[in-house]
Amino acid sequence: MSEITTVPFDDDKLKEECGIFGIFGHEDAATLTALGLHALQHRGQEASGIVSYDGENFLAHRALGLVDEIFNDPITIAKLKGDAAIGHNRYATTGGAGLRNVQPLYGDLSFGGFSVAHNGNLTNELTIREKLVERGSLFQSTTDTEVIIHLVALSKAATVVERLVDALKEIEGAYSLLAFSENQLIGVRDPNGFRPLALGRLGNSYILASETCAFDIIGAEFVRDIEPGEMVVITKEGIKSSRPLEPAQSRFCIFEYIYFARPDSDMNGKSVYEMRKRIGAMLAKESPCDVDLVVPVPDSGVPAALGFAEAANIPFELGIIRNHYVGRTFIEPTQSIRHLGVKMKHNANRALVNGKRIVLVDDSIVRGTTSRKIVEMMRAAGAKEVHMRISSPPSKYSCFYGIDTPSSNELLAHTHDLEAIAKYIGVDSLAYISIDGLYRAMGKNGRVANDPGYCDACFTGDYAVKLTDQVTYNCSGEKLDTRLHKVGGADD
Amino acid sequence: MSEITTVPFDDDKLKEECGIFGIFGHEDAATLTALGLHALQHRGQEASGIVSYDGENFLAHRALGLVDEIFNDPITIAKLKGDAAIGHNRYATTGGAGLRNVQPLYGDLSFGGFSVAHNGNLTNELTIREKLVERGSLFQSTTDTEVIIHLVALSKAATVVERLVDALKEIEGAYSLLAFSENQLIGVRDPNGFRPLALGRLGNSYILASETCAFDIIGAEFVRDIEPGEMVVITKEGIKSSRPLEPAQSRFCIFEYIYFARPDSDMNGKSVYEMRKRIGAMLAKESPCDVDLVVPVPDSGVPAALGFAEAANIPFELGIIRNHYVGRTFIEPTQSIRHLGVKMKHNANRALVNGKRIVLVDDSIVRGTTSRKIVEMMRAAGAKEVHMRISSPPSKYSCFYGIDTPSSNELLAHTHDLEAIAKYIGVDSLAYISIDGLYRAMGKNGRVANDPGYCDACFTGDYAVKLTDQVTYNCSGEKLDTRLHKVGGADD
Amino acid sequence: MSEITTVPFDDDKLKEECGIFGIFGHEDAATLTALGLHALQHRGQEASGIVSYDGENFLAHRALGLVDEIFNDPITIAKLKGDAAIGHNRYATTGGAGLRNVQPLYGDLSFGGFSVAHNGNLTNELTIREKLVERGSLFQSTTDTEVIIHLVALSKAATVVERLVDALKEIEGAYSLLAFSENQLIGVRDPNGFRPLALGRLGNSYILASETCAFDIIGAEFVRDIEPGEMVVITKEGIKSSRPLEPAQSRFCIFEYIYFARPDSDMNGKSVYEMRKRIGAMLAKESPCDVDLVVPVPDSGVPAALGFAEAANIPFELGIIRNHYVGRTFIEPTQSIRHLGVKMKHNANRALVNGKRIVLVDDSIVRGTTSRKIVEMMRAAGAKEVHMRISSPPSKYSCFYGIDTPSSNELLAHTHDLEAIAKYIGVDSLAYISIDGLYRAMGKNGRVANDPGYCDACFTGDYAVKLTDQVTYNCSGEKLDTRLHKVGGADD
Amino acid sequence: MSEITTVPFDDDKLKEECGIFGIFGHEDAATLTALGLHALQHRGQEASGIVSYDGENFLAHRALGLVDEIFNDPITIAKLKGDAAIGHNRYATTGGAGLRNVQPLYGDLSFGGFSVAHNGNLTNELTIREKLVERGSLFQSTTDTEVIIHLVALSKAATVVERLVDALKEIEGAYSLLAFSENQLIGVRDPNGFRPLALGRLGNSYILASETCAFDIIGAEFVRDIEPGEMVVITKEGIKSSRPLEPAQSRFCIFEYIYFARPDSDMNGKSVYEMRKRIGAMLAKESPCDVDLVVPVPDSGVPAALGFAEAANIPFELGIIRNHYVGRTFIEPTQSIRHLGVKMKHNANRALVNGKRIVLVDDSIVRGTTSRKIVEMMRAAGAKEVHMRISSPPSKYSCFYGIDTPSSNELLAHTHDLEAIAKYIGVDSLAYISIDGLYRAMGKNGRVANDPGYCDACFTGDYAVKLTDQVTYNCSGEKLDTRLHKVGGADD
Repeated sequence: MSEITTVPFDDDKLKEECGIFGIFGHEDAATLTALGLHALQHRGQEASGIVSYDGENFLAHRALGLVDEIFNDPITIAKLKGDAAIGHNRYATTGGAGLRNVQPLYGDLSFGGFSVAHNGNLTNELTIREKLVERGSLFQSTTDTEVIIHLVALSKAATVVERLVDALKEIEGAYSLLAFSENQLIGVRDPNGFRPLALGRLGNSYILASETCAFDIIGAEFVRDIEPGEMVVITKEGIKSSRPLEPAQSRFCIFEYIYFARPDSDMNGKSVYEMRKRIGAMLAKESPCDVDLVVPVPDSGVPAALGFAEAANIPFELGIIRNHYVGRTFIEPTQSIRHLGVKMKHNANRALVNGKRIVLVDDSIVRGTTSRKIVEMMRAAGAKEVHMRISSPPSKYSCFYGIDTPSSNELLAHTHDLEAIAKYIGVDSLAYISIDGLYRAMGKNGRVANDPGYCDACFTGDYAVKLTDQVTYNCSGEKLDTRLHKVGGADD
Repeated sequence: MSEITTVPFDDDKLKEECGIFGIFGHEDAATLTALGLHALQHRGQEASGIVSYDGENFLAHRALGLVDEIFNDPITIAKLKGDAAIGHNRYATTGGAGLRNVQPLYGDLSFGGFSVAHNGNLTNELTIREKLVERGSLFQSTTDTEVIIHLVALSKAATVVERLVDALKEIEGAYSLLAFSENQLIGVRDPNGFRPLALGRLGNSYILASETCAFDIIGAEFVRDIEPGEMVVITKEGIKSSRPLEPAQSRFCIFEYIYFARPDSDMNGKSVYEMRKRIGAMLAKESPCDVDLVVPVPDSGVPAALGFAEAANIPFELGIIRNHYVGRTFIEPTQSIRHLGVKMKHNANRALVNGKRIVLVDDSIVRGTTSRKIVEMMRAAGAKEVHMRISSPPSKYSCFYGIDTPSSNELLAHTHDLEAIAKYIGVDSLAYISIDGLYRAMGKNGRVANDPGYCDACFTGDYAVKLTDQVTYNCSGEKLDTRLHKVGGADD
Repeated sequence: MSEITTVPFDDDKLKEECGIFGIFGHEDAATLTALGLHALQHRGQEASGIVSYDGENFLAHRALGLVDEIFNDPITIAKLKGDAAIGHNRYATTGGAGLRNVQPLYGDLSFGGFSVAHNGNLTNELTIREKLVERGSLFQSTTDTEVIIHLVALSKAATVVERLVDALKEIEGAYSLLAFSENQLIGVRDPNGFRPLALGRLGNSYILASETCAFDIIGAEFVRDIEPGEMVVITKEGIKSSRPLEPAQSRFCIFEYIYFARPDSDMNGKSVYEMRKRIGAMLAKESPCDVDLVVPVPDSGVPAALGFAEAANIPFELGIIRNHYVGRTFIEPTQSIRHLGVKMKHNANRALVNGKRIVLVDDSIVRGTTSRKIVEMMRAAGAKEVHMRISSPPSKYSCFYGIDTPSSNELLAHTHDLEAIAKYIGVDSLAYISIDGLYRAMGKNGRVANDPGYCDACFTGDYAVKLTDQVTYNCSGEKLDTRLHKVGGADD
Repeated sequence: MSEITTVPFDDDKLKEECGIFGIFGHEDAATLTALGLHALQHRGQEASGIVSYDGENFLAHRALGLVDEIFNDPITIAKLKGDAAIGHNRYATTGGAGLRNVQPLYGDLSFGGFSVAHNGNLTNELTIREKLVERGSLFQSTTDTEVIIHLVALSKAATVVERLVDALKEIEGAYSLLAFSENQLIGVRDPNGFRPLALGRLGNSYILASETCAFDIIGAEFVRDIEPGEMVVITKEGIKSSRPLEPAQSRFCIFEYIYFARPDSDMNGKSVYEMRKRIGAMLAKESPCDVDLVVPVPDSGVPAALGFAEAANIPFELGIIRNHYVGRTFIEPTQSIRHLGVKMKHNANRALVNGKRIVLVDDSIVRGTTSRKIVEMMRAAGAKEVHMRISSPPSKYSCFYGIDTPSSNELLAHTHDLEAIAKYIGVDSLAYISIDGLYRAMGKNGRVANDPGYCDACFTGDYAVKLTDQVTYNCSGEKLDTRLHKVGGADD
C-alpha cells in the first residue's frame, strides 16, 4: 500500500490464479511452452515452471518470477529436452510456500514419472489432504494440486488414465488440468467447466492451453475448446476424447469475458474483445451519462469504453496516460514523498480533461483504492465533472473456483451500497451494469436463475459446487470442528 | 534481429537519446530525481545515473538498466544524500563504452565538484577532443559531454557560471544541459533550442526536466519552458535568468511532437496529445482512405489514429493487441522456431479484422521491418485490405542533434520512393503527411523555408547548425584528412 | 580434470558425505547450528540446510554452496526462529538431484512436522523405496534419507519415538541420525556405529554433532560420544538414553582417524591429531627412508609427517607451499595453457628441496593423479630423490557406508600392485602402513579378523553389514533381476 | 570487530597493498596474467584488473573481489584479447572510491592508449595533484597512480619512455611500476627499490611480477630481480635496461621477508622461507624459553616456528588448528553469541596442549587483538604456561611506502612498552627479535645506521624518502597551511 511500485498489473483487481500450456510431439516442446506461457503471463505473474520428457527422463525447471526472466537463459531451455512438455504460470496467493509450490508438480509413481499443471481450485482439498496424511502420505507442497498426484499414486487401477479418473472422482471444485506421463498428455476440464481450456494444433503436434492467444504467439491453429467434463488423451496415435465424469451444469466463469482473458482470445466461440465492447455498449444504454468525453481506465477498461463511446456517441479520448516502464517495486517513500501522491502508473492528460465533463469506464471495482486515486487525479487535472461506469455488476462475494479474491469484508460492494461507493470513490455519478444486462450483452435474454449458463458467484453468491472445506475449516485452513494438528511451514 | 526479444520499445523507431532531471532545495532530492527519471524513461532506456550534493560531498550512482532496476534499493537512494541532485537517462548508441559513459558525468575541479547531465549532441566534439588530448587532458569517457567539463576545467574565468559560459562558446550543436556545482544548479538550452527543457516548482524547490510529465509524477507544478539560448542559475537565493550566448533561429525538434515526447507532456504551450490528434486529422484530410476500421499501431500511433478516425468518421478499433509483459531478450530461437514467426509483442485481434478493410496509422517508418511484419500479421488474420497512413513526412536524413538514427542508407525512405516503400511494406496503399500539412497541423501556414520555426532536418536535410566533425571525420570518427591516432577502447 | 580449479579440497581424496549438527533449548539455535556446520564444513561442501522450530512452525533454509555463503545473510538466519534446530552439510554425489536432495529433509506427518538429518548410507534403500512407491508413497528426493521419513509416516505406533524405532528396524547400513519433531530432538547411531556422533552441552542446551570441533567453535563442552546402537531423546525434561535396536559388533570407520575428521576433534576418547602422529611414527618404523627432509603433502598429511619425522629423526620441512586463496573453478585453459602444467594449489619450495633427498608423507592414494603431479613438481624443483610413505593401507574397495568412493576399478590400489603404483606415481620408493601396523598405532595388537573393532572394508573388503541393494541392483541403481521402471529425474 | 567473519587473512596484520604482473609476447597473455595475479592474491584481496592490447584496441576488465571470482568467466577472459597484458591486485584502503580506483588505470593520450599498474605509495601525490587540478586536469580516481598518467600526458617529450621518465622525475616515494603502451611493456622500480619486481621468461615472452611465485604457477623461469632505479623496456625487439633516475640508497622493505611475501618466493637471491626459519632460529637464541612445545600461530608463523623449534630443540606441534573454509563475513552475532567467543578461524588442539607449557611463535603484533584471543584460547584448552616470541622487532611507526598500517596510536608497540604488551596479550613471557638480530639473521653484522640496506621505518622511524604530503597535509588529506577546497567524493 505504502510502497511506490511499478508492478504492471493493478493491485486492486481480482487475480486469475493460473495459466497452463502443454504440447505433445514437437521437437521444440520446451521453447514453445515458454512462449505459450509468455502469452499467458496475465494469468499468473509470480512463478512459472516447465516439465518436459525426453523419452527417458522427465526434466523440470521452476522458479519465482516472470516467464521471460525464468526462461531467458538458453542453457535452461536446452536442458528441458524432449518433444513433449507442460508449463504453468502461477499467481501465488499470500502465504504460498515458495518454490516447492511452483507447478507443474511432479512425482515418481510406480508406473513412472507423472506431472500435473492445474488451473482452478479444489473445494475439498483440505478434507482429502487430512485423510491422506493420516494414512501416511507425505506432502511436499501446500498446493491443492498435490492431492491429485497422491490420489493417482494410491489408485489401484491398471492404467494412468484410469488412475487419474479415480482421483478426479474424489475431488470437487474447479479444474482445467494437464497431466503428463511417459507417453501421453492428458487434458481435462471439471464437469462445470469453470475455467477455460482450448485445443490447438501446430503441424502434427497437439497443444492444450488456457487461452487461444497462446496459440497465436507461435502461429498454431485453434481447433476447439475442450468441453466441460471432457477428457482428451494425446499420444503418438493421436487424440482421444471421453467423458468419464458425471455431467453437470455449464458454469464457465463470466469474469473471463469481463477482465481476466486477453482481449485477443476466443472463448466458447466468442471474441473477448467483442464481448467487452458489447458490455460497454449495454452499459451506455442502461446508464447513460451527459458528458464531453469517455475516458477508459487503462488498460483493461479500453474495449468497454470504446463500446460505451460508440453507443453513447461521445468522443473516446485517452484522458489517462499509462507509463509503459513499469515492472517492480521501486522506492520506499519517505513521509514527505508519500504526501506528494506519486503517480507511477498513470498520469492525467491534463490539456485534454481540463474543464471537461468526463465519464471513466472501468471493468470492476474491488477495494476501490485505485478508482479513488484516479478520480482524484482527474479532478486535480481540472475535470469539471467525473462520472464512472463499471462493465460488471458489483463484486460482492469471494470466489472459491480459482480466482484470488480478498475476503468479502474487503470487497467495497460487499460492505457499501451504490451511493456509499460513489461517495467513497468521489464521483459525481456511478453505475454498474446490471446482472441481466450483462447476460443480455452476452447474447442471452437476461439471467436464468436455475441454470444461468455461467458462473457469476462473485456477483450473485450462487455457488454451483458445494464448499466442503468451507464447512469443515475456516478461511485460514483451521479446522472448525476439532483442532487440526499444526502443519509446519518448513520451506526454503 | 534473430532473437526473440521482449524489449518494450520498438527497435524500428528513432530513439531519443536522453532525458534529464534536476532539483534544487528539497530534502528528498535523490528520490524525486529517481521518480522524475522514471517518468522520462521513454527518453533513454539503457542506463541511468544520479549525482547529489549533501553540503560536503558529491554522491553518485550510475548503472546500466532501467531506472526502477537501478534505484529500487533503499540503500542506494539513502546514500544519495543532500537537497540537490541531477539525473540522466541514457540511450546508449552502439559501441558505447559501458559504465564510464553513464551520465551525469562528474569531475573534481579546482573550485570543487562539478557535474553535468546533457541531452543533445555536439557537432564539433571530436574536433575539440583532439585538441584537448593534444595538450594533455585525460578523458575518462567517450561521450561528447565530457569535453564540456574539460573546457570548464581549463577556463580561467572567476566563477563557475562564467567558466561554463566560456565552455559553451566553444561548442556547437544541440544541448539542453544541467550543470551542478556546490551551491547552484544551472540549466541551459542551446541558442536554437533543439531539445526541450522545462522549469517546474515543488513547494520552495525548483526543478528542471526534459518534459512536463516528470513534474506530474511528483505533483510538481509546471512553471514555463526554458527558452532557446537561455541560462537559469538556481541557488538558495532563487532563480536568475540570462542569455549569455549569441541568439539564433528557433529550431525545436518537431519530431518530439510526432513521437519522442510523452503524449501527456506540454511543450511550448502545446499539448503533445492534441498535436498528434491534429496531425492525424490533417493526414485523414490529405490522404483519405475508404475502409471499415482505423487501427492504430500500438502504442505510439494511438493519438494520431484517434484524430484520423474522428476526421474520417470511421470506427477506431484495437485491431492489434500488445502484450504488456515485455522486458528483455527472451529466447534464442532454433531455426524451426524462427520459421513460426513468433509474435512476442503484438497479436492480431483476429475476430475483429477478419474480412475487414483496415487502415493502419503509425507515426513513422524507419527501416520498415516492423511495419512489414504487422501488415503480414493483419493479412494472416484475414484483413481484406490493409492500408497505411504515417503521421510524419518520410524520414530521409540522419539526425546529428541528439536522436539516434541509422545511417541514411538504412533509412527506407532515403533509398526507396513511395511506391517502392508501399511494395516493401506490403500495403494496398501508403501515404505520409506532407511537410506543409505537418506545419499546418502545428498551427502554421505551411513550412517557411528560411525560418521554419522547427528543426525538421530528418525530413528536409536542412541542418541549422554546421556539422564540423562531419567535415573533418567520417561517421566512424576516423579523421578524414590525416590518420587519427588509434584511440584505445579500454573499458570495464 | 582439464579445468584449472581452485576448489580447496583435493579431488583425489575419498569424500566424507555428511556432517550433522542439532541443538535443543537455546534461543540462538539457528545461528549456533550455522556455526557448527561451518566447523563441520570438511564433511560436506556442496550444500547445507537448517530446519528450526519456533513453537508453532518449522522453518527451513537449504541451498547449494558453502555454509558461509548460504547463511551469511542476517535475514536468512532471522527467519529460522526458535530454540531448537538441526543442520546438515552435504557432499553431493554425482547425479544428485539438486536442491530437493539437500537435507535436513522435512515432512508434515499426521502428528505434525518431522525433520531428519542423516550421515551415512543405507544399504537396502532402493529395495525399500521400490516397495513404498508400489504402495503409493510419493518421493520428493532421491536421497536414501527420505525412506526413513516415509517409514515413520506409515508406522501405526503411538509416539514419534516408537514410529522412528519401527522405521529403523527396517533399514540396514550406516547412519548417525538426527530426528526432530515438535518437542524433541532425537539422536541415534546404527548398531555398528559406523559414523560418529557426539553429545555436547552449552549452558542448559544439549547439542549433537558429528565431531567435537563443532562444540569448540561455539564454546560448548564435549560430554561424551553417543554409543553404537544408542538412541538419545532430548526434550525440555532433559535427555533419555535407550538401546532399541539389536546389538552388533562395533565397527567405527577407521578412516575418520586417518583423513576424514578434523585433527582437533576427539573420537572415542582418542585425539585425531595424536592418532595421526602415531600412525606416522609407526609408518617410519615399518618403512624407514634414508633422506634429508620429511615433506608433508599439505594439508592433511601434516600430522602423520610430523610423527614420521620425529620417529625417524629427520628434519620436517614445508617443501610444498599451498595457495590459501582457493575456492572455485577458475579458468578454462587453452591447449597451450594446459601444456604449462599450471600449479593452482601447490608450489614447490624450490630453494629448500633443490638437491635434497626427500620423503613425501601423505594419508592416502585414491586415483594417484595428484600424487603423480606432486612428485613431478618435486623433481622439477631439483629434488635428488623422491620417496613416498602413506599413512593408510592401500585403498582397494568401495565404501557403502557413507563415504564417496570411486568405483573399485578407478582405485589405483585395486588395479595395481605396489611396484606398479610406485612406477605410476614416479617415486624412488613407496610404502603404505600395514593393516596390522595401523591397528597397533591405534593401540591394539594388530587386527583381529573376526572382530576387528573398526570398519576397514575399504582396505580389507570385510563388509560388516550385508549389501542388500548390491545384490538386487547394480551400482547405477538398475535392478538386476527384472527391469526397473525408469524413474524420472525431474528437478529444478 | 564485532562480526563473525571468515575472511582468510588476519585483520590484525599489516597489509601489502598491491601485486602486479605483466607479460609481453604470449598469445594467452590475459589468462597467464589472471593466473599470475592469483599467485599474488596475498598482496591484495579487494579488487583486481587486467588491461590487454590486441594490436588495435586496449581491452580492460576490473572488478571488486578475488581474482578467481573476477576472472572465472571464460567470456571475460576471451574479451581480453592480445599478446600483451598487465594486471593488478589491490588492497583497498578505507575510503577508497570503489571501482574507479581499481587498477590498472588507463588513459587515451595523444600518442595512443597508456595503462599503468603500480605497487607502492607516492609521498608527494597530493601536492602534485593539487597543482594539476589547478591547471585544469580532470581526475577520474583518487589513487596516487593517476598523477603519473597525467604527468605523462602533459610531458612534451618525444617518446613514451621519455615522457614516463619526465613523470617519474616529479614523483617521490615507493613504486614498482608497470607501464604499457601500444608496442611496449615498461617496468621500473624507484631508486630506493622499496617494493619488489622480478623478471621472468616463458618461452619467448618476458614477464614482470611482484614475486617469483607468480612465475612458478605458470611454469615460467625466474631470470633476475629488476634493480632499484632500473627501467626495462620490453618490445618485440627484446628487452633494454636503463637507469634514468638519480641513484639512492638501497632500501628494500625488510618486512617482505618477515610476513608479506609468499614463503616460496625468492627475493634478491634469498629464499623467503629460509630467511623466516633463520629469523626464528635467531629469535630462539636471543630469547630462549623453557617449554614443552613450540606452537606456530597459523599460517604465517609456521616457518619461524620451525626455525625456533630446531634451534631450541623443542618439539614443533600444531597446537592451533586453522579452519580451511574461510572466505567472507558470515554471521551478525547477537549479544549472547558474541559472549561465546566464537572461534571461526582457529581452534585449540586441546588434547595436545592440555597441561603443557607452550611458546607461540608469530611474525608480528599490530593491534594485539588476535594475539590476545589466541592466548586466551590456549589457556582455555589447558595450557599450563603460554609464552610468545615474535619474529620481528616491535611495529611502532606507520609505513608511507605502500603498506597499509593503522595510524601509529593504534599500534600496540607505539603506545605500550614490552611489559605492558605482555600483560595486554596475557602471556607469561614475551620477546621480539632485536633489530640487530633481524639484520644478523639476514646475513649482516647487525644494522648499520647510515646505510642499513633495507627499509625498516616501521620499526625504527628512519624514513628514507621525505614525506612531502605529510608536511603539507594531515593524515586525512586536509591541507595544513591553507584550507584545501572540498574535493567531492562522487562515485558509483
